[in-house]
Amino acid sequence: MKARFAALSAGLAELGCEALLVLAPSSQDSDLAFLLPAPAHLGECLLVLPRLPQGTEPRLGFLTPMEREEAAATGLALLTPEDLDVSRWSSELPDPAYFLAQVAGRALERCGVAPGRVALAGHGQAGVIQAACAALSGQGWTWVPGNALVYTARKRKEPSEVEGLRAAAAVTGDAFRAVARLLAAATAGENGDLWLEGERLKVARVRAEISRVLAGSGLEQPRGNLVTPAEEGAIPHCTGTPDRVLRAGESLVVDVFPRLRLFADCTRTFCVGEPSEALRRGHALVRAALEEAHLRAAPGVRGWDVQERVCARFEAAGYPTPISAPATTRGYVHNLGHGVGFDLHEFPTFKKATGAEGVLREGDVFTLEPGLYEPEEGWAVRLEDMVHLGGDGPETLTPLPYDLDPRAWV
Amino acid sequence: MKARFAALSAGLAELGCEALLVLAPSSQDSDLAFLLPAPAHLGECLLVLPRLPQGTEPRLGFLTPMEREEAAATGLALLTPEDLDVSRWSSELPDPAYFLAQVAGRALERCGVAPGRVALAGHGQAGVIQAACAALSGQGWTWVPGNALVYTARKRKEPSEVEGLRAAAAVTGDAFRAVARLLAAATAGENGDLWLEGERLKVARVRAEISRVLAGSGLEQPRGNLVTPAEEGAIPHCTGTPDRVLRAGESLVVDVFPRLRLFADCTRTFCVGEPSEALRRGHALVRAALEEAHLRAAPGVRGWDVQERVCARFEAAGYPTPISAPATTRGYVHNLGHGVGFDLHEFPTFKKATGAEGVLREGDVFTLEPGLYEPEEGWAVRLEDMVHLGGDGPETLTPLPYDLDPRAWV
Repeated sequence: MKARFAALSAGLAELGCEALLVLAPSSQDSDLAFLLPAPAHLGECLLVLPRLPQGTEPRLGFLTPMEREEAAATGLALLTPEDLDVSRWSSELPDPAYFLAQVAGRALERCGVAPGRVALAGHGQAGVIQAACAALSGQGWTWVPGNALVYTARKRKEPSEVEGLRAAAAVTGDAFRAVARLLAAATAGENGDLWLEGERLKVARVRAEISRVLAGSGLEQPRGNLVTPAEEGAIPHCTGTPDRVLRAGESLVVDVFPRLRLFADCTRTFCVGEPSEALRRGHALVRAALEEAHLRAAPGVRGWDVQERVCARFEAAGYPTPISAPATTRGYVHNLGHGVGFDLHEFPTFKKATGAEGVLREGDVFTLEPGLYEPEEGWAVRLEDMVHLGGDGPETLTPLPYDLDPRAWV
Repeated sequence: MKARFAALSAGLAELGCEALLVLAPSSQDSDLAFLLPAPAHLGECLLVLPRLPQGTEPRLGFLTPMEREEAAATGLALLTPEDLDVSRWSSELPDPAYFLAQVAGRALERCGVAPGRVALAGHGQAGVIQAACAALSGQGWTWVPGNALVYTARKRKEPSEVEGLRAAAAVTGDAFRAVARLLAAATAGENGDLWLEGERLKVARVRAEISRVLAGSGLEQPRGNLVTPAEEGAIPHCTGTPDRVLRAGESLVVDVFPRLRLFADCTRTFCVGEPSEALRRGHALVRAALEEAHLRAAPGVRGWDVQERVCARFEAAGYPTPISAPATTRGYVHNLGHGVGFDLHEFPTFKKATGAEGVLREGDVFTLEPGLYEPEEGWAVRLEDMVHLGGDGPETLTPLPYDLDPRAWV
């Protein structure tokens, strides 16, 4: 954590800022959580990191006296509601923007930061943030966007974060194995509908199984999950209609991205019964593309370069890609992967970026997720692994079967 | 929806604004979702509502060509990525703040809104929003906080929203019945630990049951849930430790707040085996307080007045409350309730507020949730119902038993 504070300080120096201010609706805010030595459950809070070496240590400000013990559990120096005069501002200034301006100004002052340039990160209500910053600008504060600074600082994962990602990925694997068992136990009726335990097998049942396993190990799904059969899988923004009955021979894309302190993210594609030749071929192509991506994703490599290789492979097989057809809705239609951490999507990026955020480095944790989509034919395949570039080489955090046939999993 | 647009227009006139701009990380953003005639799954998007009658109809802007069909499904007039010149700004201006400034400026212009006063709502990255607004300020735009305006506009629920809240509450009821069945089937070992199906019954198992039922009907839990036994229930910010083994005779506070388009929110408190006399008495007091709250929560009543009555009741029984002891961590330690809708917490408020947001009105949907907490003795009780103030009188959306004993539920 000290190395991270030092890296942020260096970034602040480059931006010409005296401090970083993080505004957070809760302590789970990704821009804040990665700066807490230990996790905590706080409501609205903020963090001030004065630039080292002249600045004081970072401080966590909380607004509710009841949260004193939770705040102390983080191990950070604190700014209490009394330090921040919360009761005074909340009674004098019911307007949330002016309340935030007073509290944030007081927090900076208490950390010895004089009016000047401050990098701003975190998240919140657009109107409130704009108005609070404008009010503080009138008192001599100048704001510099700090979201990119914190994204960059959390690209390389701390060992405890890799542990957290590994733990979340392990339970995610349990969820996929449970889904495979459930699908392997299903039988097809005469019209092809799948049946399980005397009922038609629906998207909702698969989702319930995933949720049961994840919740049983304390994982939440703040962003839901995707359980998308056939034509629904072929539309990347579709989450899956709960009442949709699953059918033999169709593709079922299952994408799970739960959070135990940090996120995991994994996708597999199943088919109960005989897949069409097109689906079988698509699955083999995606699996080969994923294998190549695993081999190429190494420290010093640009994410975009791996994306280009995967695109070339799909194009050679006759599919359009974002490179040959930027607006395509069939073939390969998205990026190859993304960093995973306190946010589901963070650095490194696999976009055509120019900066260091697009270069894979030791300590990064990211997904690799090639896919093929055929909305007209009504099938899709996506296979997604999580990879940690460790000191001893790459580590796949989602070592699961890739088979379409769930019986091959059991 | 037309009435809501008209109400927002009237609010814009009061603020002296020509338009409302809503910035949203996704179409589920609460400040945006309540303005969509039909739901949709969009990523980053924005909405411009020019002030009526001179303004054009509201328009939804989306940034990804792939989301065209999803955006069209909302039924709103659209601003496409081409209208917003997204590909130009994203290639010329990789900085997210300047990208947002260009896109938002173009969106306002396309809706015929000339530089001037604009109310700002929605949510996003603090640094990006501040910088984007500052850049647009240089082009003649003046920002007015608009979050309070949208909160007020969605206090009264549309009939379709009441339907959505009722549907979410119904499944939440199913989850509580499933928890009661699970607890009723548990048996106590010699040392008081509860057992079920050959294993010690833990918090995680209860949580898995809740998640199974909710996910089976398509509900998500973006903010998790609370399953808090004994001493954990007595700390309002504790969510429940997954490995904590449940024990006979202790309180178990279960607070579930899932989302199916809109949120539901309900709490019950269970005790397997014999409760202590203190827990039994506390439960009876909370139940009586909830009954009184139900009777008093009527159109035209201030939420704070009901809170005062509940406090007086608890104080008469010997418990501290936020009125007699504002910083108390035992007794009754929180507000009586909150509105529920696209956000888990919205208007009406039960705080000591002065405006219309603190007055219950026909069409409101809110919780009533008195509770008692004894951290020293290690028990807690909270009972929470959702109420809709309908045209025919109040309707409890969570008509469930209140019994401590789960066997009384089955």
